[in-house]
Amino acid sequence: MSGMNRLERWESRTQTPLMIAALVFLVAFAIPIVNPGLPSSVLRTCTVVQDVIWGVFLVDYAYRLVVAPRRWQFVRKHPVDLAAVALPALRPLRLVAALSFAHQVAGEKLRGHVALYVTTATLLVVTISSLAVLNAERGHPDATIQTWQESLWWSFVTVTTVGYGDYAPVTGEGRLFAVGLMLCGIALLGIVTASLASWLLERISEPDPHRQPATAADVAELAEEVRALRAELAGLRGPDQG
Amino acid sequence: MSGMNRLERWESRTQTPLMIAALVFLVAFAIPIVNPGLPSSVLRTCTVVQDVIWGVFLVDYAYRLVVAPRRWQFVRKHPVDLAAVALPALRPLRLVAALSFAHQVAGEKLRGHVALYVTTATLLVVTISSLAVLNAERGHPDATIQTWQESLWWSFVTVTTVGYGDYAPVTGEGRLFAVGLMLCGIALLGIVTASLASWLLERISEPDPHRQPATAADVAELAEEVRALRAELAGLRGPDQG
Amino acid sequence: MSGMNRLERWESRTQTPLMIAALVFLVAFAIPIVNPGLPSSVLRTCTVVQDVIWGVFLVDYAYRLVVAPRRWQFVRKHPVDLAAVALPALRPLRLVAALSFAHQVAGEKLRGHVALYVTTATLLVVTISSLAVLNAERGHPDATIQTWQESLWWSFVTVTTVGYGDYAPVTGEGRLFAVGLMLCGIALLGIVTASLASWLLERISEPDPHRQPATAADVAELAEEVRALRAELAGLRGPDQG
Amino acid sequence: MSGMNRLERWESRTQTPLMIAALVFLVAFAIPIVNPGLPSSVLRTCTVVQDVIWGVFLVDYAYRLVVAPRRWQFVRKHPVDLAAVALPALRPLRLVAALSFAHQVAGEKLRGHVALYVTTATLLVVTISSLAVLNAERGHPDATIQTWQESLWWSFVTVTTVGYGDYAPVTGEGRLFAVGLMLCGIALLGIVTASLASWLLERISEPDPHRQPATAADVAELAEEVRALRAELAGLRGPDQG
Repeated sequence: MSGMNRLERWESRTQTPLMIAALVFLVAFAIPIVNPGLPSSVLRTCTVVQDVIWGVFLVDYAYRLVVAPRRWQFVRKHPVDLAAVALPALRPLRLVAALSFAHQVAGEKLRGHVALYVTTATLLVVTISSLAVLNAERGHPDATIQTWQESLWWSFVTVTTVGYGDYAPVTGEGRLFAVGLMLCGIALLGIVTASLASWLLERISEPDPHRQPATAADVAELAEEVRALRAELAGLRGPDQG
Repeated sequence: MSGMNRLERWESRTQTPLMIAALVFLVAFAIPIVNPGLPSSVLRTCTVVQDVIWGVFLVDYAYRLVVAPRRWQFVRKHPVDLAAVALPALRPLRLVAALSFAHQVAGEKLRGHVALYVTTATLLVVTISSLAVLNAERGHPDATIQTWQESLWWSFVTVTTVGYGDYAPVTGEGRLFAVGLMLCGIALLGIVTASLASWLLERISEPDPHRQPATAADVAELAEEVRALRAELAGLRGPDQG
Repeated sequence: MSGMNRLERWESRTQTPLMIAALVFLVAFAIPIVNPGLPSSVLRTCTVVQDVIWGVFLVDYAYRLVVAPRRWQFVRKHPVDLAAVALPALRPLRLVAALSFAHQVAGEKLRGHVALYVTTATLLVVTISSLAVLNAERGHPDATIQTWQESLWWSFVTVTTVGYGDYAPVTGEGRLFAVGLMLCGIALLGIVTASLASWLLERISEPDPHRQPATAADVAELAEEVRALRAELAGLRGPDQG
Repeated sequence: MSGMNRLERWESRTQTPLMIAALVFLVAFAIPIVNPGLPSSVLRTCTVVQDVIWGVFLVDYAYRLVVAPRRWQFVRKHPVDLAAVALPALRPLRLVAALSFAHQVAGEKLRGHVALYVTTATLLVVTISSLAVLNAERGHPDATIQTWQESLWWSFVTVTTVGYGDYAPVTGEGRLFAVGLMLCGIALLGIVTASLASWLLERISEPDPHRQPATAADVAELAEEVRALRAELAGLRGPDQG
């Protein structure tokens, strides 16, 4: 733990509890949207749970902002955390931010990590979007998206940029979430292609074993040889001149 | 054959018969879906053929699991094989798994192999999806996909992420297959782009013949020269001191 | 300012005022399209503002053409400027051209600049397209795009290549703008993927610290060592022969 | 011309006339489809022109096959030529084949050539597809594509993978052409992305001028220095031992 500043210590300690809190938030967010017919006591409990966890996130964000060595940089580097705390509609995104922190800690095997992160983030974004859009659309007279099954189907059709148009949001709020989901779809396409391209390029450009480039170590070894030669020559000169 | 473990020996021996069995399975899977009006004896034969071949795949998977040097690694490395054996709806995927094995054996000329593999796998996935979705949709009152021609057309429209929406699945099972097909479409786009990018990069970055990097061999040759020099110097010193 | 030719001096001096003029043009272009019901005096003012700014752009283009060292090359390198001056329907594109100039000036940190430029250009193209298509469609009896909210939604659905088809242009002019927007969408997809791929490849191919390639400096240092050795040998030979 | 075999000589001589013939074919192919109401004498002339030019292509293909050094390789390397001659519906593709030959001749500046070739080929494929699909669809009772304007709009919506679904082919033949166009769209996306990625990677990975890798020439120069040293030493040894 030594060598970390207070921000890093706090983040590494709170990582697991905050991810669990974010998951609980997602469940409490999903229940009233998927089953609006539940008894009102259950729905009220869900609202309370959401508010409490949002309070926890607010305290967490405020504490990290206070102990951050450079506050402005912290705000700029954690836009998703800020959006999740500031905009009620984007609160579920806090889960993606929690995930993003887990990713920053991990070091090696970048491509594998990217693949795992992208898969998890895509599933989360699809789930959250389907819930948020269902919440925005339900009740609107022209809405085609009326159940969670339809909303989830619409989310997959959108994130893959297929876009059948059998379901499409009609409310302003629903369309805002949809645009966010489409941009995630473009990022998804991009990251899948980029991973495949980097894998292909690595496999194809594997170096010819007969034409290994000379390393600095090879040259240093040779320089050692020349220096030994010079030392011997100096020894030769000494007795000569004596 | 020496130098192979029992798993590799088994796989290289069973490769061709299993691919033929998978093709027969696909035909026996397709016939009742495409022509549901055939006499029931034909349909029953198709079901029996499917069950027998599935049994063969089950035995094959079990045997490979038993002889695998590291069982957990084997399970993790062959997810399609497992899915094809465990989930009745995904049995036709066994054909893709058979193909995948053929790919692992091949060594050189990666890009050509990737192109061939992707083309074959895409055609297979499109065919299998169109059959599975037709099977799931037909009979549903709101279904737009009612014939194999329509289902195949829908599959191509989906895998290329065009998504007109003139046909779209309406059942839960049909939509599950559709999401799988969309993800294959994204992978297809990715692999096409990646292959083109690696080809372009290779062609463009062909090294300048006047600035070939020094190889380890170049340096080793030079080091030999220096060592010879040192040996001569040692010979020079000897008579001097004698 | 010394070392610049007259064209570069002019462009660096007029850059900021022309960007402001282009933004004012966009506002004067947007107002009558978004609110066609405004009093006619406001609408007439907007038209006058557009015409005046277009005159400014025409003078700017003519002046730059006159002072350009190579006129034909200037015309070929600034196609968007020419289109924005020559074709009334494409005048708002002058804003993208202004942006493009800002990009050429910037030097380092290419990927960050590309990301910022692509984001701004995409937002501009989406805004301009939504206005131009709304202008072309409104009033047509079969048009589905009737308000700016719908037009903006349609623009995002198109530029991300999702294409639900809930809204689509029906007039020739609207479809021409739509094709331009689709091609921008393909470029957007391409640039996102390319940036991610270059980032991944850079991160993955970070060189092994134990196998750093030999640099020309390493070899030059070694050559210095050998030359010193030769000089010493020459010194050894001198007294020997004396 | 010396150093070329008979096939290459023939191809370089016939390149321009065959491209003109292919363009005339495209016009004679387009006229009856776009204006089916023209007098029958004009339509008959168009049919005759198409048949004559097809005959020319048949003779050209046959001659090239006869003089090709390796016939089987020739057939495999020119699949579009063969398809354009063998399948009446694909005759217009001969224009793309003519273009493809022009591309093979060009040598340097690969990325620029790729961009030009892709733009031209995409425009050609879009034009040809729109004509072929219009030809297949018109007259079908359920067809939505009834005029060339609609068909061209549908082609752009398809090749960019947007796919609104406001127009979609309903005949088997129209759908076959549509699948071809979709695959071209995927290739278009791939090549745009690949070109941008290769451009970005080249610009970003420009080598650090302070860490230029050692070239084989650097090491060869050093080896020369060492050899000179050895020669001097040999000269030193000679008088010593004498």
